[in-house]
Amino acid sequence: NSYFKIAVLPGDGIGPEVVSESIKVLDAVAEVFNCQFQFSYGLMGAEAIFKTGDPLPEETLKICKDSDAVLFGAIGDPVFDNNPEAKVRPEQGLLRLRKELGLYANIRPLKTYASLIDKSPLKREIIEGTDIQIFRELVSGIYFGEKFTDPDGKYAYDVCKYSTEDIIPIAHMAFKEAEKRKKKLTLIDKANVLDTSRLWRKTCQKIASQYPDVQLDYIFVDNAAMQLVLNPKQFDVILTENMFGDIISDEASVIGGSIGLLPSASIGEENALFEPIHGSYPQAKGKGIANPVASILSTAMMLDYLDLPEAADKLKRAVEHAIENRYVTVDLNAEQHYSTSEVGSFIADYI
Amino acid sequence: NSYFKIAVLPGDGIGPEVVSESIKVLDAVAEVFNCQFQFSYGLMGAEAIFKTGDPLPEETLKICKDSDAVLFGAIGDPVFDNNPEAKVRPEQGLLRLRKELGLYANIRPLKTYASLIDKSPLKREIIEGTDIQIFRELVSGIYFGEKFTDPDGKYAYDVCKYSTEDIIPIAHMAFKEAEKRKKKLTLIDKANVLDTSRLWRKTCQKIASQYPDVQLDYIFVDNAAMQLVLNPKQFDVILTENMFGDIISDEASVIGGSIGLLPSASIGEENALFEPIHGSYPQAKGKGIANPVASILSTAMMLDYLDLPEAADKLKRAVEHAIENRYVTVDLNAEQHYSTSEVGSFIADYI
Ligand SMILES: CC(C)[C@H](C(=O)O)[C@@H](O)C(=O)O
Ligand SMILES: CC(C)[C@H](C(=O)O)[C@@H](O)C(=O)O
Repeated sequence: NSYFKIAVLPGDGIGPEVVSESIKVLDAVAEVFNCQFQFSYGLMGAEAIFKTGDPLPEETLKICKDSDAVLFGAIGDPVFDNNPEAKVRPEQGLLRLRKELGLYANIRPLKTYASLIDKSPLKREIIEGTDIQIFRELVSGIYFGEKFTDPDGKYAYDVCKYSTEDIIPIAHMAFKEAEKRKKKLTLIDKANVLDTSRLWRKTCQKIASQYPDVQLDYIFVDNAAMQLVLNPKQFDVILTENMFGDIISDEASVIGGSIGLLPSASIGEENALFEPIHGSYPQAKGKGIANPVASILSTAMMLDYLDLPEAADKLKRAVEHAIENRYVTVDLNAEQHYSTSEVGSFIADYI
Repeated sequence: NSYFKIAVLPGDGIGPEVVSESIKVLDAVAEVFNCQFQFSYGLMGAEAIFKTGDPLPEETLKICKDSDAVLFGAIGDPVFDNNPEAKVRPEQGLLRLRKELGLYANIRPLKTYASLIDKSPLKREIIEGTDIQIFRELVSGIYFGEKFTDPDGKYAYDVCKYSTEDIIPIAHMAFKEAEKRKKKLTLIDKANVLDTSRLWRKTCQKIASQYPDVQLDYIFVDNAAMQLVLNPKQFDVILTENMFGDIISDEASVIGGSIGLLPSASIGEENALFEPIHGSYPQAKGKGIANPVASILSTAMMLDYLDLPEAADKLKRAVEHAIENRYVTVDLNAEQHYSTSEVGSFIADYI
């Protein structure tokens, strides 16, 4: 297959700027690797609320469902964050999209770049050589459990629920990845307090027998939050539930010093969504200073998913080439830097 | 009042070793400051399970309820952690004790010591000068909500519930502390997803009008996990719910490089419990290498609580004196170090 339908959701803040560099790069890929991408654009997030009142308009959902993969920018706007009374929020759109597309596994590779190690807030000897792959469950848990606020505003609750069916598919995915890597899988949970965490442990323990080469470890989430800072190299593949994954993967994303470089994939049975880890970064919107690399590396993950491994590799090499040659945005080099679009063009040209 | 009943719960792992240094120091305080401490010992944790089958025997609870304050060591044993089927767990004892004593506010001061800054995993310029006070709600939320695992083991749930009554007292405490400090209070939540978080925001927003000098900020927990590593100095007083507090306060405790020094207080209307932040650290048990300073500084927090501020100050100065003179355990100085009990005696002698 060499023809792909890509849903493009630029979203909020710097989303549109970085996504258009991904498109630029995909155009180059299409030429060189003799394939075709058909892009359909959809509104999403705060942008969509302002224009349609709905953070995920039906039209957008349809485009996504019809696509082979979704390229996503970023979501979120301070207007909504500071207003606890807001009934409609941009994030609802993203959560609903995850659920509707069944994107149960959020995957975040965390690598360090030799030439950027000094950007890390951690000391060199602690961070150097860190290489972690995080699997976060994305469509269950407290995000999607029953929620309630009593009409008088006296109390509220959120239910965290998991069934073994929610856990098994992503656990297999994580075990398989561990088999390909250092054969070490760490489950992060709070099994000393939560019933759902004990269900995760039991379920993973059972599955472990099918992967005899993989060593399965457990760590409590509070301890994991410490160990990521003290000694990140101890981790290889991490598996965790939705809420813990949100916190831990964001913590992990900054220890390398280059959050502007980190991609992510959200995978389901029938579709997948690719987005940079950095958020909408509203302060930088429209200034041409946003780093397009995370979006471009997310695009590389998409190419892998679409079974175009050569194109994906070429794209990753192009990014490394840009970084090694210090052809980067201001976040990575304050002295000499290039604009979002210059960096995107440099990478596209290399391809 | 100069006569105090102290419940002493040494607990598991290195708990007994560090608590006995606190007792040593309290004996010195009693002599110098002309007061009396009556110590009643209770079993607690894995230790108590092995001896009585119950992690919090009634006898222990009674001792605590009769006391003016509780001195606590540590809890936890790997035997239980690796067994998701265990029906009785050490942690249940601690959770029940918190609930029974109504210890709704867990307070963790996070300071850096100039002479120890190089122990931090973070770069000097990032960590230097960090001074944070964390208020974690301790007797509600997902820890104490309804829990359920279906008998077939197919699904499980945990309910996170908050009422405004759970939030108001600790919020006032945090606002008052902020008034005494840099007048900046940051609420950590996940208000873009959770109903309970929106209840926290609304409740704190209302209370804020009573503290016009304090600036109230909000930050999502995933972002907070990043910011603590990227720029911890931006925080002054932090307020958060139980589960987020567990994760965030542990993350915060390692960035200074001296978790062996960090104390905590858990405060209720009628009683209070003081414990070091480090856990039971089973690998070090009985070796005489555990750092007693966190337990001793927790004791200083207890003296403040008992309205003995001069004794508390003297104790804090004694600890600083020991650290400045490099009279420390192996975790702080690998080359020349002293035993748990030598450090305790040095501090007691200074008093
Ligand atoms: C925007 C928000 C709802 C979302 C989440 O919490 O899942 C984001 O933080 C993420 O990690 O993708
Ligand atoms: C032992 C455990 C139940 C406890 C908690 O999660 O509250 C501990 O991690 C703590 O922070 O005091």
